[in-house]
Amino acid sequence: MSNAAQLYDQHRDTLEAALKAVRTRDHWSPFRESPSARLHGEEAPRLGKARYEAQLGKPFDLDQPGTIGTVGAEVSPYTRKALGITYPKSDPAALFAASRKAMAGWMKASPAERAGVVTEMLFAMEKNAFENAHATMHTAGQGYVMAFSGSGANALDRGLEALVYALKALDDVPDSARWTKRFLEPEPVRLEKRYVRVPLGPAVVVCCATFPLWNAYPAMTANLMTGNPVIVKPHPTGVLPVAMAVRTCREVLERAGYDPNLVLLAADEPADQITIKLLEQPDCRIVDYTGSQRFGTWIENNCPGRLVFTETAGCNSVVFHSAKDFGKAIHTVARAMTAFAAQMCTAPQNVYLPRTGVLTPEGVVPYEEAAEALVAALDAISGDNKLGPAIAAAVQADTTIANVEAMTRRGEAEGRVLRYSTPVSNPDFPEARTASPVLIECDAANEDFYGEERFGPVSFVIPVESAQEGVKRATATARTQGAIASYLYSTDEDFIEAAEPDYLAAGASVSINIDRGMPMNFMGAYSDYHVTGLNPAGNASLTDLAFVAPRFRVVQTRRPA
Amino acid sequence: MSNAAQLYDQHRDTLEAALKAVRTRDHWSPFRESPSARLHGEEAPRLGKARYEAQLGKPFDLDQPGTIGTVGAEVSPYTRKALGITYPKSDPAALFAASRKAMAGWMKASPAERAGVVTEMLFAMEKNAFENAHATMHTAGQGYVMAFSGSGANALDRGLEALVYALKALDDVPDSARWTKRFLEPEPVRLEKRYVRVPLGPAVVVCCATFPLWNAYPAMTANLMTGNPVIVKPHPTGVLPVAMAVRTCREVLERAGYDPNLVLLAADEPADQITIKLLEQPDCRIVDYTGSQRFGTWIENNCPGRLVFTETAGCNSVVFHSAKDFGKAIHTVARAMTAFAAQMCTAPQNVYLPRTGVLTPEGVVPYEEAAEALVAALDAISGDNKLGPAIAAAVQADTTIANVEAMTRRGEAEGRVLRYSTPVSNPDFPEARTASPVLIECDAANEDFYGEERFGPVSFVIPVESAQEGVKRATATARTQGAIASYLYSTDEDFIEAAEPDYLAAGASVSINIDRGMPMNFMGAYSDYHVTGLNPAGNASLTDLAFVAPRFRVVQTRRPA
Repeated sequence: MSNAAQLYDQHRDTLEAALKAVRTRDHWSPFRESPSARLHGEEAPRLGKARYEAQLGKPFDLDQPGTIGTVGAEVSPYTRKALGITYPKSDPAALFAASRKAMAGWMKASPAERAGVVTEMLFAMEKNAFENAHATMHTAGQGYVMAFSGSGANALDRGLEALVYALKALDDVPDSARWTKRFLEPEPVRLEKRYVRVPLGPAVVVCCATFPLWNAYPAMTANLMTGNPVIVKPHPTGVLPVAMAVRTCREVLERAGYDPNLVLLAADEPADQITIKLLEQPDCRIVDYTGSQRFGTWIENNCPGRLVFTETAGCNSVVFHSAKDFGKAIHTVARAMTAFAAQMCTAPQNVYLPRTGVLTPEGVVPYEEAAEALVAALDAISGDNKLGPAIAAAVQADTTIANVEAMTRRGEAEGRVLRYSTPVSNPDFPEARTASPVLIECDAANEDFYGEERFGPVSFVIPVESAQEGVKRATATARTQGAIASYLYSTDEDFIEAAEPDYLAAGASVSINIDRGMPMNFMGAYSDYHVTGLNPAGNASLTDLAFVAPRFRVVQTRRPA
Repeated sequence: MSNAAQLYDQHRDTLEAALKAVRTRDHWSPFRESPSARLHGEEAPRLGKARYEAQLGKPFDLDQPGTIGTVGAEVSPYTRKALGITYPKSDPAALFAASRKAMAGWMKASPAERAGVVTEMLFAMEKNAFENAHATMHTAGQGYVMAFSGSGANALDRGLEALVYALKALDDVPDSARWTKRFLEPEPVRLEKRYVRVPLGPAVVVCCATFPLWNAYPAMTANLMTGNPVIVKPHPTGVLPVAMAVRTCREVLERAGYDPNLVLLAADEPADQITIKLLEQPDCRIVDYTGSQRFGTWIENNCPGRLVFTETAGCNSVVFHSAKDFGKAIHTVARAMTAFAAQMCTAPQNVYLPRTGVLTPEGVVPYEEAAEALVAALDAISGDNKLGPAIAAAVQADTTIANVEAMTRRGEAEGRVLRYSTPVSNPDFPEARTASPVLIECDAANEDFYGEERFGPVSFVIPVESAQEGVKRATATARTQGAIASYLYSTDEDFIEAAEPDYLAAGASVSINIDRGMPMNFMGAYSDYHVTGLNPAGNASLTDLAFVAPRFRVVQTRRPA
């Protein structure tokens, strides 16, 4: 039995449970989401931190072909100090040549063997969860708990989800068939047919700055499962978590007897980015992109002959019609606006409030009062000395702070600033780049201002004549500018039912009345179809069959039996 | 129970059998492939012909929105006379507006309801099989028997195949789920989730001149099943079979209670073609194209934001290494070269013959003798007064005859013409435009000449030093110029095994040692993956999950349970 087949046996129960999970779509995970010492012991967190710190100021240990120098320009959003880690600088053509070569042996592995190896990668990466949490904090700026889960278990779950979807698509193709048909002669023709699943070819996975691994893992596993080698291009400000993942995948491949060059790193620096050079390589066949809508749309339109999957960004909305518990609802919204300085793709930006107020069991909350409640909730969260810095985390880039300032000035000129952004002081990291949301009241007619994504902690309150108008405006923006998450509060089932066709027509998934117990923008692997691919926030969903099936095709042989 | 649900019940056994067929991939069909009067009675063939003739010289009866005039310029390749039928000339924007409007009600139909209606369309179209055979003959130029099956049962089978693949992809998405997860609070969060399968939007299906319905049916059923309305754009020289199909689909939709504008015709004339105008409509979301490689590649590269599926054309090869029965093998190749004047996408063009000859149980057939055997076989087929015209059928376009002449002149200059193209006289249609293959011996180094598709009855014999060289050259051409079907003759298992990686790397499916009992280029629905999508002969396979899954996406709602 091959190493890979042994790994499949070892992970068979996990794979079967994952296949069941994507069918029932209930919560499930084989990974540990919490960094609690009760689960991991006291030693693991300490060791993870020490390992992260031991990497600072040194060349990253990664031996891969095509190295023509070094790069590395990461700066921690928490300490504002350079990490000082250098990575191999790679020749794009050499990376593709190594990829293509590595593909030959991997093509011959069965879907089950690939599943064994790729699942092993995920569990091997989980072992670095603490080290990776620090790496993610000090590059993306995420808080510790989010970094532990969002670059750890939650991201690994999405990798496993894409893996089993690929398994489904591969298993839909039988290995062989016997075909018997009578033509004109009395004796029927019998053919033996063999169906070979052939990968498209090398894939480039382009990662984003704020969630380095969350979309990277599913893109990597979707590609590897379907036989395609992967060249991972981290954002130049967030190389470390990606480099660690690449190294781990390479180690697992090597141990399983495959060419480690099935997974390669293509690092760069902000001043000299290589994404376009990679995509222009003639042998680039697949692109998985996470990042800005502008570059994502450019890639969608300028990579003919490549299979392109994008998740970019959208203009996410909250519409208030009525609420069972308005206080809890507004607190839930405020928390999602504050969390990780609204740098998540699911963070709400535009809150549509009826001028007639929000209906509650206790009576109508007037418009002004509702807007004030949102300000108060934002103040309470970012003013909480303990929770505030943990929730707000750090702002990844200086340009985001500049954007908050520019939007504030524009808000003063064109609307009314209901709340100014403030730093959220962090006792552990006094130098951290932090910001709580600016909240701007903006006229509904001024779509030029609020009607596109304003990245970072920039939020709007938009007074509307009615909640219906709010739905119309929110979904029109989703349709034309994209939306990844939409939120609606209403206790009126008729109102909800009437709103639904607008959300469907905009390709906008909607969370209704989430007011307690969970971050409203939490996306559950195996259960939530993340991004619809139906509006400009991306052309793909992670994960459905459309995300995996086109990555391989069938080449057949047939001959007389 | 809705009409659609009743239709599903009525067709349930057929659908289940089709789902089984695409799994086992053995031969199966619910349609009648043969026009024999023993199956259909004496009346049906006569009636079909009379119905076809009754349409000549009249406006085609099709009532659809957006009509701004009439078009119609079809000329029979058999009689060389204008059919004189006129069709609605449509305003593209009006077609898309009607499509979009029709989509709303269809979106609400369940996958089973859609399957009921779309299966009913296929059986309704089968009822026109005789009339359609004459319509196909007198537009595409196919022979009667091929027209009956290739625009009839064989095409309907492919429609049903795509239908059940779409059903699989739709059924992979559950309607709803219950999700329970504990976050920080002791009480777990419970969400109810609903998953709505949302179609991408209006699709344009562009049909080709020589097989008007063979790829059209699967594209139509794939789109309709996934909720997308279809605007069918026939080739201007072959409108009638497509118009008949559109009319039948509209009748079935109307009877089932749906908006008939889910299926619309967009006819044009050779001098004023509207394909690009259709694809440029802002609401065009999907393109299914069959036709020339040049236009197909243009569409692949110039339709950003549209989902594009193409089947174009390739440079199909035959490599001879050795043969159990060389005479039968060469006859099989000659027949495939002659059939329908090599206007099928699977027709062989380039025959690689080793200079050292072809090994057979009776000894080596020397190169010259092998080439002569091919000439003799071609002569025998096209010279057979009865079979010849039935097999060779008619040449669709004057430009194809011009191409045969141009290639012949070039062959005289650059190679050696082993056999000249001749008319294949047809007693039933003395005016028919016919041609048997020209066979040109061409130096292997002269790839400029033989190394691309030369449409129509143009074939090459290419002497090679060895069969290995033949495989290398054939697969190199497939990789760079595309191939839809490749053929290999060898009795040596080691040779076949060694050749396989080259075919896989070229994305070229290969038929091995087919020498009797069937046309070697027959493609069986439910069994053969037609076109790999891995070389320039097209980017899609008809049919796999990749052909259907991206045509819809999931929009979800979630709320506390």
